[in-house]
Amino acid sequence: MKSRYIIGALAAMLALGTPNTMAQETAEMKEFTLEDLNFGGTNYRNMIPGNRWLTWWGDQLVRLDVEECYLVDKKTGKETVLFTVDDVNKWLGCTLDNGLRALYNATFPYSDQPLVLLKFGGERRLVDFEQKKQVWSQCSADELQASNFNTVSRHTAYVDGDQLYFRPADGGKDIQLTTDGSREIVYGRSVHRDEFGIHSGLFWSPDGMRLAFYRMDQSMVTDYPQVNLFPRIATHEPDKYPMAGETSHEVTVGVYDVATGKTLYLKAGDPKDRYFTNVAWSPDSKTIYMLELNRDQNDCRLVSYDAATGERTSELYRETDEKYVEPQSPILFLPWDDSKFVLQSQKDGYNHLYLFDTEGNELRQLTQGQWVVMDVVGFNTKNKSIIISSNECSPIQCNTWEVSVKSGKRSLLDNGEGWHTPKLSSSGRYIADSYQTPEIPRNISINDAKTRKQTAYYTSPNPWEGYKVPQFSCGTIKAADGTTDLYWRMVRPADFDETKKYPTVVYVYGGPHAHNVDARWNYGSRSWETYMAQKGYILFILDNRGSENRGKAFEQATFRHLGQEEMRDQMCGVEYLKSLPYVDADRIGVHGWSYGGFMTISLMTNYPDVFKVGVAGGPVIDWKWYEVMYGERYMDTPQSNPEGYAQCSLLPKAKNLKGKLQIITGYNDPTVVPQHCLMFIEECIKAGTQPDFFAYPGEGHNMMGHKSVHLHERITQYFEDYLK
Amino acid sequence: MKSRYIIGALAAMLALGTPNTMAQETAEMKEFTLEDLNFGGTNYRNMIPGNRWLTWWGDQLVRLDVEECYLVDKKTGKETVLFTVDDVNKWLGCTLDNGLRALYNATFPYSDQPLVLLKFGGERRLVDFEQKKQVWSQCSADELQASNFNTVSRHTAYVDGDQLYFRPADGGKDIQLTTDGSREIVYGRSVHRDEFGIHSGLFWSPDGMRLAFYRMDQSMVTDYPQVNLFPRIATHEPDKYPMAGETSHEVTVGVYDVATGKTLYLKAGDPKDRYFTNVAWSPDSKTIYMLELNRDQNDCRLVSYDAATGERTSELYRETDEKYVEPQSPILFLPWDDSKFVLQSQKDGYNHLYLFDTEGNELRQLTQGQWVVMDVVGFNTKNKSIIISSNECSPIQCNTWEVSVKSGKRSLLDNGEGWHTPKLSSSGRYIADSYQTPEIPRNISINDAKTRKQTAYYTSPNPWEGYKVPQFSCGTIKAADGTTDLYWRMVRPADFDETKKYPTVVYVYGGPHAHNVDARWNYGSRSWETYMAQKGYILFILDNRGSENRGKAFEQATFRHLGQEEMRDQMCGVEYLKSLPYVDADRIGVHGWSYGGFMTISLMTNYPDVFKVGVAGGPVIDWKWYEVMYGERYMDTPQSNPEGYAQCSLLPKAKNLKGKLQIITGYNDPTVVPQHCLMFIEECIKAGTQPDFFAYPGEGHNMMGHKSVHLHERITQYFEDYLK
Repeated sequence: MKSRYIIGALAAMLALGTPNTMAQETAEMKEFTLEDLNFGGTNYRNMIPGNRWLTWWGDQLVRLDVEECYLVDKKTGKETVLFTVDDVNKWLGCTLDNGLRALYNATFPYSDQPLVLLKFGGERRLVDFEQKKQVWSQCSADELQASNFNTVSRHTAYVDGDQLYFRPADGGKDIQLTTDGSREIVYGRSVHRDEFGIHSGLFWSPDGMRLAFYRMDQSMVTDYPQVNLFPRIATHEPDKYPMAGETSHEVTVGVYDVATGKTLYLKAGDPKDRYFTNVAWSPDSKTIYMLELNRDQNDCRLVSYDAATGERTSELYRETDEKYVEPQSPILFLPWDDSKFVLQSQKDGYNHLYLFDTEGNELRQLTQGQWVVMDVVGFNTKNKSIIISSNECSPIQCNTWEVSVKSGKRSLLDNGEGWHTPKLSSSGRYIADSYQTPEIPRNISINDAKTRKQTAYYTSPNPWEGYKVPQFSCGTIKAADGTTDLYWRMVRPADFDETKKYPTVVYVYGGPHAHNVDARWNYGSRSWETYMAQKGYILFILDNRGSENRGKAFEQATFRHLGQEEMRDQMCGVEYLKSLPYVDADRIGVHGWSYGGFMTISLMTNYPDVFKVGVAGGPVIDWKWYEVMYGERYMDTPQSNPEGYAQCSLLPKAKNLKGKLQIITGYNDPTVVPQHCLMFIEECIKAGTQPDFFAYPGEGHNMMGHKSVHLHERITQYFEDYLK
Repeated sequence: MKSRYIIGALAAMLALGTPNTMAQETAEMKEFTLEDLNFGGTNYRNMIPGNRWLTWWGDQLVRLDVEECYLVDKKTGKETVLFTVDDVNKWLGCTLDNGLRALYNATFPYSDQPLVLLKFGGERRLVDFEQKKQVWSQCSADELQASNFNTVSRHTAYVDGDQLYFRPADGGKDIQLTTDGSREIVYGRSVHRDEFGIHSGLFWSPDGMRLAFYRMDQSMVTDYPQVNLFPRIATHEPDKYPMAGETSHEVTVGVYDVATGKTLYLKAGDPKDRYFTNVAWSPDSKTIYMLELNRDQNDCRLVSYDAATGERTSELYRETDEKYVEPQSPILFLPWDDSKFVLQSQKDGYNHLYLFDTEGNELRQLTQGQWVVMDVVGFNTKNKSIIISSNECSPIQCNTWEVSVKSGKRSLLDNGEGWHTPKLSSSGRYIADSYQTPEIPRNISINDAKTRKQTAYYTSPNPWEGYKVPQFSCGTIKAADGTTDLYWRMVRPADFDETKKYPTVVYVYGGPHAHNVDARWNYGSRSWETYMAQKGYILFILDNRGSENRGKAFEQATFRHLGQEEMRDQMCGVEYLKSLPYVDADRIGVHGWSYGGFMTISLMTNYPDVFKVGVAGGPVIDWKWYEVMYGERYMDTPQSNPEGYAQCSLLPKAKNLKGKLQIITGYNDPTVVPQHCLMFIEECIKAGTQPDFFAYPGEGHNMMGHKSVHLHERITQYFEDYLK
């Protein structure tokens, strides 16, 4: 199914012949400010689509608000109050001052019991909202660095002061599990710099009686020096940062057994600088599975361990690739069959699901086609099916499908439009289906997989009503390979006049694991694009090869020479722009952040006569200064791919700089460390070129809060000064 | 005597009515580039006044060149070759490859012997150029961190690897004098951050048999974190930096006795965080004198110590001041009377000379008047007079005078014009007198104090011949106090047209111990001013109260509130500019570095409607981040002068920023540490104002070498972008 939005875009383009009418229409409308549009802005909350915070209590849909919880009738969408903040405080003898203040974070962990889990007053509490009393509580203090609560055993594991603690469900004393935790020995937290889908370091077994946890020894990793400017006298705050080709950290997985009180480590053996990813437990809590990857990232194995002994029990699956294998999702056991699990792999060229048994036999491929499984949402236990998100409808959409484990048959569970973010009920029958389309800011429907009925529940008002909204459109061009379709988005001023010539800014990211153009509201346009369009610019955004959701070949085209194919594709975009009569080819700018900063400087220095002005944020300059995990996946090491590193490095390009380029960095960026942009500046100084520069003191890789408003004012002003 | 140059300037101003003639004259002339004008530029050497490198051998004048040494006939200026590089190498059996390569650094330490001191081939050598042979040598290796050679004993002291060594004249083995030298315990080097006239840490007694040396314990001083960006992975290179009001270092003075081989320390007693300055030896090598200053810097004592025991023997003089006392020159014994010495003090309001005996009796004031002694050049032993540099002729001049110790009578030893840099012969009779005037790039004459004859020896060609030279002028206005004369310099385009309106840039320094306007060539104009004038700007430079050479009240007007009076004076300059028909009051910019960076931001934020564009280099933002020695002299401590620190801090002014301001810093500035400008930027970000910023990686407080060209291109471009 081909997306209808491309056609929508073409229709929008055909409609371009009526600029005067549009100008009249918008004449008395409001103008956007950065306080409206930017996520740190003072009026930002009023300018984004409305939403409803929903959660499931079994198959009952609950809406969470500050003061109330509502039960939502799945057939009508009608809401009835389940209980209120005041109720809970009354039941517990608390007041708003010492008690619960909001219900936003309430969860309902037990399908079959009227219990709500709340955290306040230094306690984690289970409140029975039918019997109107607290039925269980546990201290929740000191869970500062990491925390994981298991709803079955009600045990908690947490990290404080770099040490790992076990906090028993029965209110007994906390047990300290480690003593050598430090900046160098890291327990219970995310490892491998959050690559490979890792985002935490505490993994309870299903029964909550065994805790697997990460231990990362980074004592051998070089410090990157960071300066904290905020104390009376600035201080040195070093950050362990393993750079590509350099010594990396060593990760192991420990298991704490609540019953025995003992801790052991999985015996994974050598070499030690491998990646231990996607920890998963067997349903019986006896076996731990990991996807283990060699440092070169081209050999991935699914390995099982006996949780009681730490012994390696088997290798169930192995995947190698000429370029790289990138495990990102743990295996998932079928809820109705403990002997089978689902594994995600893009070994056939696209990310798909495969059914395995615990002997390591691949039983069958569950999904197939030139589209990708983007997420496993859950299971429908009655239908024995898997609920997935995929872009089968269109490369820029995300829709919810049911996949029969037995037959592989797929059924669409939503309206087949736009971009859906489903929340699945316990049984998997119901979906709270929040979605956007290019024209719809946000709708939420309640979908019943059994009846196939989709009940409208919430429609966001248009938050931009009354404003001069720019024109959003979308389309495709061919990539530099001549065959691949690339998706673009264009944003034009509200009073766009095709007889005029507009300064045009290419916004670019371009790196892996991301895309910019999709079938969300306004094609996923970033609000700064609206601001710039209001100022009289055309914005153009193209997802080049190397970006996500388009399959392995598309993504891996950039292997060992990051930025090169991406630039070729972006230049196809520029050629397209130049073919448009209303684009001023002498006033083309470019802006991007992070990988997009790398792309911005790459484009400015490789095509110095094309781009007049650029703003590059947090740019990678030479991949040798980027970290091991991400860097070596795409570039191998500086030792093994010297020509690739040399080709992609922007240091020798510093001399080519011709247009106005502003480089912006967080002064304390721990992700793309400031050595990148400062050494580029050094090369420019040597070569006699003149980039501009700005640094946000104390900030990391992205400017947070209201600083983002300041940043975008800065970026805008630079184009106003030099491109307009 | 009033300077004639002010009048010259007025004449230049009267001549302004002929712009067209001037434009015609300059029509076919060359234009300056930054490579011509900037000290790091590729053509800079050809664009500065020519010079001759002169030294004295007793009363014989010697000119040093790369390949030859010449004897200069003092009556005629005629030169004859004394010896050549080839001669020396032939005498010593060396070639250019392994021998001497240039004679630039030759010295003639013994008036009465034909010996030249040369350092090459890892040896310090004395060569008899009459007997044509080497008569003495000593290893000169490893003298890496500091070194001092005594010409009497021919012993050397040096510092390497943080340890102090004694190197005997006789070729015997070096003796290591310290073992605990380190980054924290500093031996034999300058202390107190080069304040109080200190620039070295090794002091030989006149007989070269005792070595006084500084020891500085800075283990208790907080580190300022500096990041070296140049290794494979950036490294932390902390720098001990005592900030105002914080714990400072502790300095002591050691004495190594060559005869006994023992080292002792002067028993200066408590408190330990005083300043031990201006070490001097008695002529008999038995007594050490120091000017000791309390931490508050308002109580200075001249103290003597027995060099053989380290005992404090007497306090000879004490000077207190409501604001501060600032010793800058060691006492000097009269060469003809070991019982008397000369002390410099500005206790009567101007820096003058006082004669003391070794009992501490002030015998008489040797100089007096509303002008200052700028330097003691030396003594005329026959006349029993002191040769000084002073600005008695004009506040913006520097001339050489002879002062009779007996009568105090002064005689001018030069032509009474411009700015003189005298080199005195051994007896004090002859002066190699290098000077500039506003119209003379450089002349050198040989002056005879006895005959009063001044023999022209060298006249530099005009290095700017054939170039479109801008118009330089000078004058005075009244300070904000209504009475004090302040000197200004103005630089106007070569084709200046008084009927036009010019963008005007105020260049400012404004801090103590410096001045900008003087009677040197083009009134001491910095070459960037020429570049800017060529681009069509008027440049204006005013030495406000607080700057040097104008007496104590002038300098101390800024005490405890740095920047405030300076701004008031600079605004008098702006009012003057606004009164000129050819200054465009809507296009006034300001630029300064260091203290001038502080002044630039002060002016931009205190007078946001006056200055449209500013460029501030290495700016102080809040004096609490500046170092103890300089900072507390002028501001006291943050604890004792909170209202002064608050008044002068630019942090609360960040919100006032309205014009375009670019802040530039050396990324590794160890003098005005980057915490200053980055915390100002942080305040701007919070307040929503938009300064621009640039950092030179690896650079310190000033951009060195060719980077200075890059810097000035940057500064120029900023005014071109926003002021023109």
